[in-house]
Parts: sequence; structure tokens; C-alpha cells
Amino acid sequence: MGAVSIALDAMGGDHGPSVVVPAALDALKAYPNLKLVLVGDKAEIQNELSKFNHTKTPRERLQIQEAKEMVEMDEPPAMALRKKRDSSMRVAIDLVKSGECGACVSAGNTGALMAIARFVLKTLPGIDRPAIVYSLPSLKGHVHVLDLGANVDCTAEHLFQFALMGSILATEVDNLPNPSVGLLNVGREAIKGSEPVKRAAELLTDMPDKINYIGFVEGDDIYKGTANVIVCDGFVGNVALKTSEGLIKMIVHMAKEEFKKHWYGKLAALAAAPVLKNLVKRLDPNRHNGASFLGLRGVVIKSHGNASIKAFSHAIQVAMIEAEKNIPDKIRLKIAERFGIVNHEV
Amino acid sequence: MGAVSIALDAMGGDHGPSVVVPAALDALKAYPNLKLVLVGDKAEIQNELSKFNHTKTPRERLQIQEAKEMVEMDEPPAMALRKKRDSSMRVAIDLVKSGECGACVSAGNTGALMAIARFVLKTLPGIDRPAIVYSLPSLKGHVHVLDLGANVDCTAEHLFQFALMGSILATEVDNLPNPSVGLLNVGREAIKGSEPVKRAAELLTDMPDKINYIGFVEGDDIYKGTANVIVCDGFVGNVALKTSEGLIKMIVHMAKEEFKKHWYGKLAALAAAPVLKNLVKRLDPNRHNGASFLGLRGVVIKSHGNASIKAFSHAIQVAMIEAEKNIPDKIRLKIAERFGIVNHEV
Repeated sequence: MGAVSIALDAMGGDHGPSVVVPAALDALKAYPNLKLVLVGDKAEIQNELSKFNHTKTPRERLQIQEAKEMVEMDEPPAMALRKKRDSSMRVAIDLVKSGECGACVSAGNTGALMAIARFVLKTLPGIDRPAIVYSLPSLKGHVHVLDLGANVDCTAEHLFQFALMGSILATEVDNLPNPSVGLLNVGREAIKGSEPVKRAAELLTDMPDKINYIGFVEGDDIYKGTANVIVCDGFVGNVALKTSEGLIKMIVHMAKEEFKKHWYGKLAALAAAPVLKNLVKRLDPNRHNGASFLGLRGVVIKSHGNASIKAFSHAIQVAMIEAEKNIPDKIRLKIAERFGIVNHEV
Repeated sequence: MGAVSIALDAMGGDHGPSVVVPAALDALKAYPNLKLVLVGDKAEIQNELSKFNHTKTPRERLQIQEAKEMVEMDEPPAMALRKKRDSSMRVAIDLVKSGECGACVSAGNTGALMAIARFVLKTLPGIDRPAIVYSLPSLKGHVHVLDLGANVDCTAEHLFQFALMGSILATEVDNLPNPSVGLLNVGREAIKGSEPVKRAAELLTDMPDKINYIGFVEGDDIYKGTANVIVCDGFVGNVALKTSEGLIKMIVHMAKEEFKKHWYGKLAALAAAPVLKNLVKRLDPNRHNGASFLGLRGVVIKSHGNASIKAFSHAIQVAMIEAEKNIPDKIRLKIAERFGIVNHEV
């Protein structure tokens, strides 16, 4: 594959340049075809860069693009969109819009990132709303779940579009010719569920040749690995994701308590530590860091706000893969094929 | 407290009398004020009873009530309601309606149990729909979550009623004078969420003296123990519960894999086994077995379909406590106080 250029919002997230800059250098070392543009306060970025050994880091593939403002983590999306035209987030997205970069990554305010990305890049023809998709671990590897919070109310058509987009993503990213797609519901029987979910099932059943729709799935199917893609509205997806995060934290806490409780606990903890460390690593949400905003005319990746250097590098990798595969164009083509929409390349 | 009589659907669940009968005998031994009525196939129940030592089990507080039919686990609720007037489930609920029993417990088909309970017992004045409430473990003890699947679509008024009922349940069952109540949402900010959730927040904020409403909570707050009661619609609650079950299973599976993967794994597993066993026990959903159908004119408790003997005994205990505290009447009084509805005792 040819070179791919990615814009990074250097100021976003809880840690800003202190995480984004070293993550960028790590990614450049790992991927020889990668070019990066660090967007933000030039002085701060250069200061961060100066901490690393110049000869060992491949800076010829690294640019800095000045942006004088930044979006705060708690800033209302509408404010960030209207008032901060020179924010690092906005400038990074502008670089995708202009075609200078094939994707952008930000660890900033999710609502603002979505609002700006939608405004600048626009949704693809035939897609009403972008969805946030994230890869969760499962007993069979991983599962792409969408939407995870962009849309609290979804119609059947929205869910149908999410299914289509998720299916394309899994095909391209996981090299699956025919990924299975399930609709998240409160039971497997056709009579169960809310009206939009039941109607979405009908829409998906009507096009069996285009999507490998396997029917309703339930909450536990996420981690069972029943499907390659699981579709739900953003309210349900967000609750499922955050409930999982909370449960993992509680289990880790309880495990520590149990080890402390017993006289042999210290010994057992010592013996089990390397094993449990691996386990916690497998469950670490940072390991899968990088949520995609699917349905836009460009690749936008959201990193966890408090991502580590390694986690932010992973988000860069996700952006690189989606840019190389040109996911937005694959979605455009599939939608055109499905609905007969004629449109120009994105 | 005086004696309390509870009807048990002996035929319900995956195991029927082979679990319900020994669980009943255990409960009778544990609670000297308890009386139980086993409802179902008399021959089968007696056969099961004959396996236990007569002199050691307190059978003077045990009755058998014949019911010739049973509701199948996959039977449509409407069919069960219309066609099976002599099912063990229906007869158990009838015993609550007639006042012969203060509560009933069934491990049978959830949808059928809800449909029959609603039809026979009716909802309380001022309550539009019953909700399923369940106690989940949290870092601070436990949290009552409702609704867990009875209502896939909820209005703001339904959510408000759930909050009121959950608050009363926590007050009575946990002896908390002023339990905290949170509304499950996708963020804490007032602008976030679906319309019913935002409107429910307004309704709850308008009556601060009656409910200790603490605002929006997110998925991870369930296990953090942020609130004593968490309210959501049945779709979201069901997904959160089942996602949690699936995640726990995946973690247990992964832990076993990790222990197997390493040369010292067997040793570590041996050392850590008693500790991890305690941990798994704390997370076991059976430990908290017994979901209440709140909002009916009577106490109805749903046991997990594949509950163990111990777990079914726990569901009997939940029924006993709610019958002793007369939760339906407490809800009736609070609603009357809130809305000025005058009604007779339930």
C-alpha cells in the first residue's frame, strides 16, 4: 500500500501532547508508510518532541500544523462548533476534508468531535446519521458494536444503516467475506423488543443476500462472540459499554479484597499475579482503543480521553487501517448498490 | 412478626419439583414463621418429598395444592393466560389474590408470569405498569435496578413511577430512611439522553422531599454503588443485566485459559483457587436470586429458570421479606400521599 497521512489532534484528551506526541513517534517507527500531522500549539508540541532523541525517531514523516485554540473536555458541542474554528480538533478534521490527510484521530470531547466532523465532512449519501463503532473483546476474538452513544433515539432505518456499515467495516478490517450481524434485543423471539428493533429486523430480513443477518441477539451474546457485528441504538450501546467497564473495575477490586482477606492471600496473589495481570490486560479497554465514527465522508477516530501512549498508538493504527481500506468509499459503494444512489467518489 | 404463607409454583423453571421441593424444605427449616404451599402435580411433589427424611423436615407448615397444568418455558404469555387456568403458575398467583398467601414464587416463563400476575392481581392505583426489579452486587453492597425487561418502551411517567417504587423497596428491604435514586442515562449533563429520561428527571426534580433523587447516572455507576436504586426502561435494563452475565462468563473462561497457558499456571491456580472461588461466589447471579414484580396488588417473585436449590431458597426469602413488609401496601400509601388517590387497602 502507498503512504497514508493522518492528522492527530495533539491537544485533545486528558493528557494532550504528553501522550499524543510520544504515541505519534511510536506509530511512525512501527509503520514505515505512515505520515503524521500533529495539530495544535506549536510550542507545546515542539517542547514535547524535544524530549525524544532526534536521531532515533523518524521525524521526516512528521509535520506540525499550528492551531491556536482547543476544545475543552466539558465544552458544549454547539459552542465548540461555532466559536472555535481554529481549534486543534477542527483543523485536524479540516485536513481530512481537504484531502491532505486520509484520517484524523482525537482524544477530545466526543460530542464536539462528532458535531464538528458531521458539520465539516457531512454524512455519506443514504446515511442519515453517523454511528460510533467500537471493537469489544469476545470469546471468539472481538465484536464490532454500534452505535455506542452518538444517537440516543434511533429509527428502524437508522439501525438498518448501522448494520450495513458495521458489516462493511468487519468485511474490510477483519477480512471476513460474510460477517454475521445481530440486532441487540431483549429476547430472540420475533415478538420481543421495541418497535424500531422489530422493524429493523424486517428490513434486514428482506435483504439476505447483502448482509449476513443472523437475527436478534441478547446482551450476553456480545461477549459470547455470537456475531461479528452487533447493532443497537446509542443509548443501549453506551449503557452496555459503560456497565461492562464498571463491572470489570468491580471485579478487579473484589479480587484484590479477596486476596487480602485470607492468610494465604499474599502467597496466592504472588503466585497468581502474572496470570491475573495477563487477564486484566486482555480486558483492558485501552487495548482496543480507537472508536470509529462510521457514516461520514472521511475517517474520524475517537481515542479514549485518558488513553495511554500505547493506547493512543493503537487508535492511530485503527485510523491507518480504515484510511488505507477507504472505508467511507466502501460504504458509499455498498449503499449505491443497495439503493441505486448515483454519487461521486467521496 | 407473625406467620407468613407463600405459594410456590412447584412445576416452574428448568428443574421443577426437584429444585423447588428441597428449597422449600430448607426454607421451612430456616424460618420458623414461614408456611409454604407447593402448587402443582401432587404425585410428582409427593414423590420428591418422599426422598427426604420426614422427621427432620418441618412438614406441618407445608401444604400441597393440586394444579393439573403447567406453563411451558417457551409458551406465549397470551396462550398461558387464556388457556391454562389450572396451571401451577396461575393457581399460585390465585392464592395471593385470595389472600391465602402473602406472596408467590415461580421459576417459570417470565412473560407468562407477568401476564398472569397483571391479569389476576392488577396494578396498584396510580401505577400504569409493573416493573421487574433485581438486586445487583456493587462496590458498596448492592443496588436495586428496575425495570429489567417488563417494559421495552417507557414514558417519563413510567420511569417516575419506577423511581417511586424502587425508593420504597429500598427503604423497606434495606432499612434505609432515604435511599438515593439515580436515572440511568448516557451522560450526567442535563442536556444528554432520550426525551423520556430527560422528562423523568424533571418530574423527579420537582418532588425532592419525597424521593432522594441524585440525578443521572451512567452504566458504570451500577457497580460503583453510586445510588441505592437505579431506574431505566426494560430494554436498557435487560441489556445491562445480560451484558453483565456474559462478561462474567467470559472473564471466568479467560481466567481458566490464562491459568492453563503458563507452566506455573497449575500451581498458581491451586494457590489462588480458594480466593477465586470466593470471588466467583460473590459475582454469582444466583446469590441474589429473586426478582420482584413491583407495582402489583400482591407480591410476585421470579426466580431464575435454572436456579439451584440454594438460589430458589433465596427467592423464597425475598418473597418472605416483601410479604412481611407488605411492599404493595407501602407503595399504595406513598402513591396516595403523592397523588391524593383515595383507595382501599390492597
